[in-house]
Amino acid sequence: MTAAIGVSMNCRLTDDERLDWLRLIRSQNVGPRTFRALIDHHGNVRDALAALPQLARRGGASAPGRICTRAEAEREMAAAQSAGIIFVALGEPDYPLRLAMIDDAPPVIAVRGELAALVRPTVAIVGARNASAAGIKFAERLARELGEAGLLVASGLARGIDAAAHRGSLTTGTVAAIAGGHNSIYPPEHGALADAIAENGVVLSEMPLNHEPRARDFPRRNRLISGLAAGVVVIEAAQRSGSLITARMALEQGREVFAVPGSPLDPRCEGSNNLLKQGAAPVTEASDVTTALRPIFEEPLQLREPDHPIAPSTPREPTDEERDRLVALLGPTPVGIDDLIRLSGLPPAIVRTMLLELDLAARLERHGGGQVSLTPI
Amino acid sequence: MTAAIGVSMNCRLTDDERLDWLRLIRSQNVGPRTFRALIDHHGNVRDALAALPQLARRGGASAPGRICTRAEAEREMAAAQSAGIIFVALGEPDYPLRLAMIDDAPPVIAVRGELAALVRPTVAIVGARNASAAGIKFAERLARELGEAGLLVASGLARGIDAAAHRGSLTTGTVAAIAGGHNSIYPPEHGALADAIAENGVVLSEMPLNHEPRARDFPRRNRLISGLAAGVVVIEAAQRSGSLITARMALEQGREVFAVPGSPLDPRCEGSNNLLKQGAAPVTEASDVTTALRPIFEEPLQLREPDHPIAPSTPREPTDEERDRLVALLGPTPVGIDDLIRLSGLPPAIVRTMLLELDLAARLERHGGGQVSLTPI
Repeated sequence: MTAAIGVSMNCRLTDDERLDWLRLIRSQNVGPRTFRALIDHHGNVRDALAALPQLARRGGASAPGRICTRAEAEREMAAAQSAGIIFVALGEPDYPLRLAMIDDAPPVIAVRGELAALVRPTVAIVGARNASAAGIKFAERLARELGEAGLLVASGLARGIDAAAHRGSLTTGTVAAIAGGHNSIYPPEHGALADAIAENGVVLSEMPLNHEPRARDFPRRNRLISGLAAGVVVIEAAQRSGSLITARMALEQGREVFAVPGSPLDPRCEGSNNLLKQGAAPVTEASDVTTALRPIFEEPLQLREPDHPIAPSTPREPTDEERDRLVALLGPTPVGIDDLIRLSGLPPAIVRTMLLELDLAARLERHGGGQVSLTPI
Repeated sequence: MTAAIGVSMNCRLTDDERLDWLRLIRSQNVGPRTFRALIDHHGNVRDALAALPQLARRGGASAPGRICTRAEAEREMAAAQSAGIIFVALGEPDYPLRLAMIDDAPPVIAVRGELAALVRPTVAIVGARNASAAGIKFAERLARELGEAGLLVASGLARGIDAAAHRGSLTTGTVAAIAGGHNSIYPPEHGALADAIAENGVVLSEMPLNHEPRARDFPRRNRLISGLAAGVVVIEAAQRSGSLITARMALEQGREVFAVPGSPLDPRCEGSNNLLKQGAAPVTEASDVTTALRPIFEEPLQLREPDHPIAPSTPREPTDEERDRLVALLGPTPVGIDDLIRLSGLPPAIVRTMLLELDLAARLERHGGGQVSLTPI
């Protein structure tokens, strides 16, 4: 987390700056982690935007990735505004602080509804789309009771448990993190539910307004659900289900994981019961959650210091020999950037510059915990 | 555990000795803990029998407790023999070793069936009498799989989960610990099930053959179910149910406690789910149990050394002043015998003699962990 990204500065961007942030994150080959690396490298968004083509070329891209134009960003902003959707950049006061603390926090979120709700202590409830009647009933009750206990309830607007969790907390406040853009609510029949959520809560997306969610967008979205919350309650999750992905992300983000016990004869409970075996806290009533989370909510949120103090002065350009040396060390298996620095014997700033180049040339993947791998061709 | 009781000697009693054991435990005011204290005090059963009247009188009994006569014990032995029931005394080779290790192991058990089964590694399965169809199905499956994995399955012959556990393991071997005598099977409709259990397994009772079980005999019996086993699996247990008593006894006996997760909307799962919250290991398949118990079964069973080395030579008789001093220290709240020794300033042997006297006068209750209290009048 860097001061350059502004999380610890807690100040509002100008409209112009916010437009630049939107352009950068909407540009090709720029994800949340690359965004962060670019800011670490260049110190501000405008310089990063200007450097994109050169960095990508150096990384070996035959054609540089498409950069979002100012006009495109302005059109998205205007369309959002007319739909009552607001863009909030990472580090602005309205950006949810807990979400800001995850590795791959979205640099810009598009939010609709009662923005102020996002400052409240939050708990997530997720579970099976094909939930049982009992599971749905329990999810709705738990969400209502957690809402009455003062918590904002986060979920993913999916069928089944997610929808029940939102319904149970409509009046007290709930936040739906969606996988597509605001104009592509999925599943389509949940449009009215999204409207109802926005009355006392928030619908939140990191995607362009008209983005239609693809399969891979859902696991990516799941990190937002857990990231918004101090803990995630899993109700009815089959093995290899999206809810277990949310639970895994919650663990990676240092969130509490709760699971609701269910019959071993119901395959919809296999994943949630396995979470119990792995140490998740069992939940049968709201107080199981509130008791566990109360001390966490009472702790002030600590923003992490940057892993490496930033030196936004651009270092010298890497040499071809240095580029070859680094690429030779990389492969499809994720390795730590620290290991790459050690094994290459190169200066850290040079290694990070080359990784950024590869990244923008779509040749690198960034994983959690400072790990990177070459993109399989 | 004392050498006098013979657990570590592992030798068979003569018929005469076994008759004396039966007489002593069938005598009024003599329970398993008093039995043990008497043997600690007198070194053997015959001397203890002879000393009973005097000890009770000294303890303040208006009339000494009724002593089981030799003729009565002979009649019970003969009746048992004709029904194919065998008496096994604590410390004999056929006595289940794990059961022998609990504080209040029955000095004599009456067993019917395949006695050899009792040496096998054992796991208990208990649960609700008014179990759901799913619970019964799961209990039967789990018992079958644990049986196939080589374990003897212990339970309590009750309706619901217990009966399902026995049925699932009839062919591989199961042991039913019952609350009444062998001639008073409860519930009565489980007579045929008891017969079937005895074909490859064992029905076990510590009560006289014709003893009709009273409500208070069931919790007492539950300690045998957990005592026989290295671990107890609880399936569907309501709050304040007998299965939770078995779980508590299992914990006191140092046994593993497992619980099968169930819906929070089913009151029959409230107790078992609460066990999960208290740290019981979740079970959804047999391997959850076998994996946890394997290392325990591989450890050789360690018999405890006696808390106080026995000095079976009878110490001097306590004085009236000493008796008053001890009684003044006692009340309805259990206190440790060690504390009584310390606070009274009396020699340990004298304190233990006086406690035995009070015990046989029905004025003392012995609890686990060397605790005693005065019987409320």
